Amino acid sequence: MLRDLIIKNRSYRRFDSSFKIPEENLKNWIELARFSASGRNMQPLKYLISTNEKTNEQIFPNLGWAGYLSNWKGPAKNERPVAYIIVLNDKSLATNYFCDDGLAMQNILLGAVEDGFGGCIIGSVNKGRVAKLLELPEHLEILWIIALGKPAEEIVLEEMQENDIKYWRDENGAHHVPKRPAKEIIYKKL
Amino acid sequence: MLRDLIIKNRSYRRFDSSFKIPEENLKNWIELARFSASGRNMQPLKYLISTNEKTNEQIFPNLGWAGYLSNWKGPAKNERPVAYIIVLNDKSLATNYFCDDGLAMQNILLGAVEDGFGGCIIGSVNKGRVAKLLELPEHLEILWIIALGKPAEEIVLEEMQENDIKYWRDENGAHHVPKRPAKEIIYKKL
Repeated sequence: MLRDLIIKNRSYRRFDSSFKIPEENLKNWIELARFSASGRNMQPLKYLISTNEKTNEQIFPNLGWAGYLSNWKGPAKNERPVAYIIVLNDKSLATNYFCDDGLAMQNILLGAVEDGFGGCIIGSVNKGRVAKLLELPEHLEILWIIALGKPAEEIVLEEMQENDIKYWRDENGAHHVPKRPAKEIIYKKL
Repeated sequence: MLRDLIIKNRSYRRFDSSFKIPEENLKNWIELARFSASGRNMQPLKYLISTNEKTNEQIFPNLGWAGYLSNWKGPAKNERPVAYIIVLNDKSLATNYFCDDGLAMQNILLGAVEDGFGGCIIGSVNKGRVAKLLELPEHLEILWIIALGKPAEEIVLEEMQENDIKYWRDENGAHHVPKRPAKEIIYKKL
């Protein structure tokens, strides 16, 4: 059921890095993104997949992890993502990609979860350095990097208290994420 | 299976308007949106649901339908959406909502499809007039309007030919949508 999949689809930041993701799975998830809606049907998004260990090691230091966990510098070596999908906008096709990025990435992540994997959308990226590292041509702009792997952390959803949006980790390492309650996000029903 | 749901989730613009959507379904879909990821966990998105016939009639003329179908002025009276979800950004919480809108709307639409309904994200909206009509306070900015109902049209996915992005309708009224092939959107695999 979709609801179960959506609840299981958390922003995972720690993985079992001994578990690799087959190329076929990654391509299947991008196929799901391909079927998502696109503003004016322009479809300007492109994807670069990396499962290459050396490239992944070079990408890693350019990513910001979990801003609110100030004492945590990101996943340890054995917890790191085993694959990245770099989401690109092809500016030669369109400068405005509307909400295509979110629509497409949600499909990718739900696909990953259905296959027993998971990931996290990272927006805090040193884009200039990653673009150089990946030798991206000028017209391909990095929008987001999806870090992927076999999740190795527990994530607990909670009702938000007193407008405190900060996620936090308990003494057992479980990651707690406060969510605004339904009555707060449904502004009105007419 | 997720893939089937994603393929069934097309941008439907013609509905059987005699089929109403129960309020419970609409709330369940927003619950799915509530569980989507949010940049910095800010969760600034809010939702206004309208199933009110009079309000829906007033919203309708403020929407642009299917830009490439220049001879089609939008759904006929008996084909119109029976519900709208107005996706709002609460600017008092955050001005930057990152890709939250796409992530959340994908969940809403997949939920709708799973329940036998469907919808279309509309970006071509006379936002000023809709905001006035709905008496929205200053801090709630209209991002998108999702038109929803029981789909009453056939949509055919096709491989794009010669970079022609325009969707079109055949003589039987089926709506054809060209999609860029996988080999074109996967820029590189490392």
